[in-house]
Amino acid sequence: MSKAQYVLTLSCLNRPGIVARVTTYLFEQGADIREAQQFDDAETSKFFARIAFDLGGSAGIEALRESFAPIAEEFKMGWKISDHSAPRRVLLLVSKFDHCLADLLYRWRIGELEMTPTAIVSNHGIENYAGLDFGGLPFHHLPITKDTKMEQEAQIWALVKETKSELVVLARYMQVLSDALAQKLSGRCINIHHSFLPGFKGAKPYHQAHGRGVKLIGATAHYVTSDLDEGPIIEQDVERITHADTPDDLVRKGRDIERRVLARAVRYHLEDRVIPNGKKTVVFAS
Amino acid sequence: MSKAQYVLTLSCLNRPGIVARVTTYLFEQGADIREAQQFDDAETSKFFARIAFDLGGSAGIEALRESFAPIAEEFKMGWKISDHSAPRRVLLLVSKFDHCLADLLYRWRIGELEMTPTAIVSNHGIENYAGLDFGGLPFHHLPITKDTKMEQEAQIWALVKETKSELVVLARYMQVLSDALAQKLSGRCINIHHSFLPGFKGAKPYHQAHGRGVKLIGATAHYVTSDLDEGPIIEQDVERITHADTPDDLVRKGRDIERRVLARAVRYHLEDRVIPNGKKTVVFAS
Amino acid sequence: MSKAQYVLTLSCLNRPGIVARVTTYLFEQGADIREAQQFDDAETSKFFARIAFDLGGSAGIEALRESFAPIAEEFKMGWKISDHSAPRRVLLLVSKFDHCLADLLYRWRIGELEMTPTAIVSNHGIENYAGLDFGGLPFHHLPITKDTKMEQEAQIWALVKETKSELVVLARYMQVLSDALAQKLSGRCINIHHSFLPGFKGAKPYHQAHGRGVKLIGATAHYVTSDLDEGPIIEQDVERITHADTPDDLVRKGRDIERRVLARAVRYHLEDRVIPNGKKTVVFAS
Amino acid sequence: MSKAQYVLTLSCLNRPGIVARVTTYLFEQGADIREAQQFDDAETSKFFARIAFDLGGSAGIEALRESFAPIAEEFKMGWKISDHSAPRRVLLLVSKFDHCLADLLYRWRIGELEMTPTAIVSNHGIENYAGLDFGGLPFHHLPITKDTKMEQEAQIWALVKETKSELVVLARYMQVLSDALAQKLSGRCINIHHSFLPGFKGAKPYHQAHGRGVKLIGATAHYVTSDLDEGPIIEQDVERITHADTPDDLVRKGRDIERRVLARAVRYHLEDRVIPNGKKTVVFAS
Repeated sequence: MSKAQYVLTLSCLNRPGIVARVTTYLFEQGADIREAQQFDDAETSKFFARIAFDLGGSAGIEALRESFAPIAEEFKMGWKISDHSAPRRVLLLVSKFDHCLADLLYRWRIGELEMTPTAIVSNHGIENYAGLDFGGLPFHHLPITKDTKMEQEAQIWALVKETKSELVVLARYMQVLSDALAQKLSGRCINIHHSFLPGFKGAKPYHQAHGRGVKLIGATAHYVTSDLDEGPIIEQDVERITHADTPDDLVRKGRDIERRVLARAVRYHLEDRVIPNGKKTVVFAS
Repeated sequence: MSKAQYVLTLSCLNRPGIVARVTTYLFEQGADIREAQQFDDAETSKFFARIAFDLGGSAGIEALRESFAPIAEEFKMGWKISDHSAPRRVLLLVSKFDHCLADLLYRWRIGELEMTPTAIVSNHGIENYAGLDFGGLPFHHLPITKDTKMEQEAQIWALVKETKSELVVLARYMQVLSDALAQKLSGRCINIHHSFLPGFKGAKPYHQAHGRGVKLIGATAHYVTSDLDEGPIIEQDVERITHADTPDDLVRKGRDIERRVLARAVRYHLEDRVIPNGKKTVVFAS
Repeated sequence: MSKAQYVLTLSCLNRPGIVARVTTYLFEQGADIREAQQFDDAETSKFFARIAFDLGGSAGIEALRESFAPIAEEFKMGWKISDHSAPRRVLLLVSKFDHCLADLLYRWRIGELEMTPTAIVSNHGIENYAGLDFGGLPFHHLPITKDTKMEQEAQIWALVKETKSELVVLARYMQVLSDALAQKLSGRCINIHHSFLPGFKGAKPYHQAHGRGVKLIGATAHYVTSDLDEGPIIEQDVERITHADTPDDLVRKGRDIERRVLARAVRYHLEDRVIPNGKKTVVFAS
Repeated sequence: MSKAQYVLTLSCLNRPGIVARVTTYLFEQGADIREAQQFDDAETSKFFARIAFDLGGSAGIEALRESFAPIAEEFKMGWKISDHSAPRRVLLLVSKFDHCLADLLYRWRIGELEMTPTAIVSNHGIENYAGLDFGGLPFHHLPITKDTKMEQEAQIWALVKETKSELVVLARYMQVLSDALAQKLSGRCINIHHSFLPGFKGAKPYHQAHGRGVKLIGATAHYVTSDLDEGPIIEQDVERITHADTPDDLVRKGRDIERRVLARAVRYHLEDRVIPNGKKTVVFAS
């Protein structure tokens, strides 16, 4: 489907009349609603909505935001209106294994993802990626040791600012971010963990899965928080395995799961389909 | 989630302002919207919505329908407001294999489905179902031959009317309905076909699947139309098989697929989650 | 597929010549091999095999066991030859929720499982199961409190012996077995846990899953050991959920997963398709 | 798992003693069996087996073939012993959409597939693949029109011979092979069709699927025969869709299915896991 130009996302305490108020406003602005989804969280009494729309006129997003602000105020909304005519700027981090990176670059190349990668950062040297076409993106080798972690993260953060990256994707970047950096990137840093969380947190999850004898393995894309592998989950998927699969087989099968789970999570984020809900997410998938 | 009392479903040509108009109306009635889903079919320019809501007041459904009618008129909607405080009346038809019937009866017993079965109809005798607890439902043995098809269908139709059944479920009822009966039950008769349609229409689909050497088998729940196995699809699912599975194995594995696909389709229908869209359906799943 | 009469399962340290030796032996006995599967665990250097076969002659299982013993001795095998012309005797335990029990009874009724249930045991009274046809099986109400656990388990154990039950199935029996009983039933007691282990061990796993915000839920069938929810896993499966699913929705969706996972695990066990491998299992699925 | 050096595949009419004979032979050769799978097709009374093994000695594959020939003769086997120490030579054909090609090249680069691509052939020009790293492979632009089909296919065939390619993969090559070429490549040409066959044969299957309103879409990898989309199926998979998915959404979701289905089928073929069985295949998957 050709995408809508604007996306409004909002959340607030639920009470009657929110949708009526918001859609009447949009109607008055001359908006053509293309897609609308809402969720009433009975547990927390919070209301969430995502509305994608086109606008015939030439008012522009600033005018929209200004005219919507009083409504947001009235309902004490957390809210955002985004212009999707331009793609989001995304910084890609990777370590040794590049299957997720290669997959994201491919999807970017064919126009599947609404993003403009700004740079690739790795704690490994560029020779590790022989045969992978970076599509002209700058590559930054930022090695890291226990002693230089703070400095390396400062470099990453400088790159985020310098490149005006709105999203950071840890595409199998195997370093744990410090609390400080995790906090700075709160809500805009997506990691792929190679297990079906909350099972098998931490290191070598496929070996853990093999040791436990599970019958399916999975992957989890989540926002990074200072709690390792505990951030809000955006997307998960699994595949069936058997007793005959060695840890190496799990690594191989896992690559396919990881890349599709990460790609879906990144797409949902780029299309403003994910709204944080405490330690969880509301995902208006498509 | 405790279910909402009322469900409004509607479809009409898309144009700006529909949602604003409808939700403003509901707000003015004092409605508490519990769930709302909409779909804008870009291909046909048709708009579909389902809104589940509670109503504090004592107005009643007739008053609601009356006050909503002018809006429906204005947008030339196909529409329905249903009261879900009482379950739907459902006639169950079955032939020799009773796994789908047993499953539906079980879900009814534990309160999973919003339905009151009215009777069980079979072209086989009751002795075929030894050990299956009908939960006190009347059982009608209506045998059928090529020569008595018309009379037998007349009996079925009489039962539908007599029991005030709003839905007829063909729970592996292996007789093809005549065009006449299919038309009378249009939009309220659900069949389960034991293949992933459009593959393997007609008789013995598991044997066809075995013969073709497919690697997954499936089942399809659809509304019955006069075109055999061509009605609007409500739900489908599949499972993986291998070369080692015999037709009998497929029949066994298929039972599990059939019963869950049929149960989902029946639940969606009972909860007014299915809206016809030409030869297809819009399913606001949950 | 019509099942083979005999099943030989074996495990031993791997070394060349095992299969040659065993299949030559079976050939000399006049056996017709119907199905054969093997697994070489590179990690532990253990070899596992399952061979299903028919035997034209009238030698009988005792003669078979006697003639095979020297080969087993030579390779220091753990082994078993079972006669599958008679179904296994199975004791069924249940608590309040009877969806798994109802499902197993249904599969028994239509001949899908090679078992003869011996009795149904519950810590709840029979009135809890109104509308469920026990198929003539004896029902034992064995209530349990913290103070009477030892006595209640003694009654269960007495029933196992008295009914000559070879397998005990905990079909959503919500009491943790004592170490003593778990040990007595080692390798022949299957539990269904309503989560995708190792995630969400212990009580109320669907509520835990809802709290964590996972995007799929699952169920796990495993042999019971004295370590709660840590026994060797036989089978697992999952289904997709969304943010909109309440804990009650998870319970509903979970019922479908639990019953099919437990039924598969029980079938694999009854057909001698499961061989223990330390804390894991080898499952020669079909 | 580190792969075994040799793979023996065989099929013949089933009769007692085959496995005993073959495994005794391998034991006498000093073989270390790494993996063994067999299948007894009750319908056709045919027996199939795949045995992967290492051989300590230095006899070599020619000596092996010679010594095995009398056994094969005795049982009238179709058989093959392959040396897997060297990868297979594979010719890759593609048209406009390169997601399957890019995926196969990636898996080749990281060593996931036992293949050496020999060349890339397309009926589109190289400018269509800007940004895709061919890894140094020769690219052949072989345009085709109705009038030049015969000549173009002659060029393809010449390339197959010249490059000594053992396998041809149609990685979304959108030209129907002539009967003549299909026959020449019988059993060694794999196509990916972007539907769950036998549903939606022929052109634009995603548009067909959208028109029919199915609830899952799929892809099918099969050997090419002169019957369009009727060749023996090697692998299939599906994903769930909804009424809200446009044909473009199906194309996007389908890309992920196609590439993993094709990659699995190619891997199975390269590892000699696929044995033809009339119009079907036996796939000893892993």
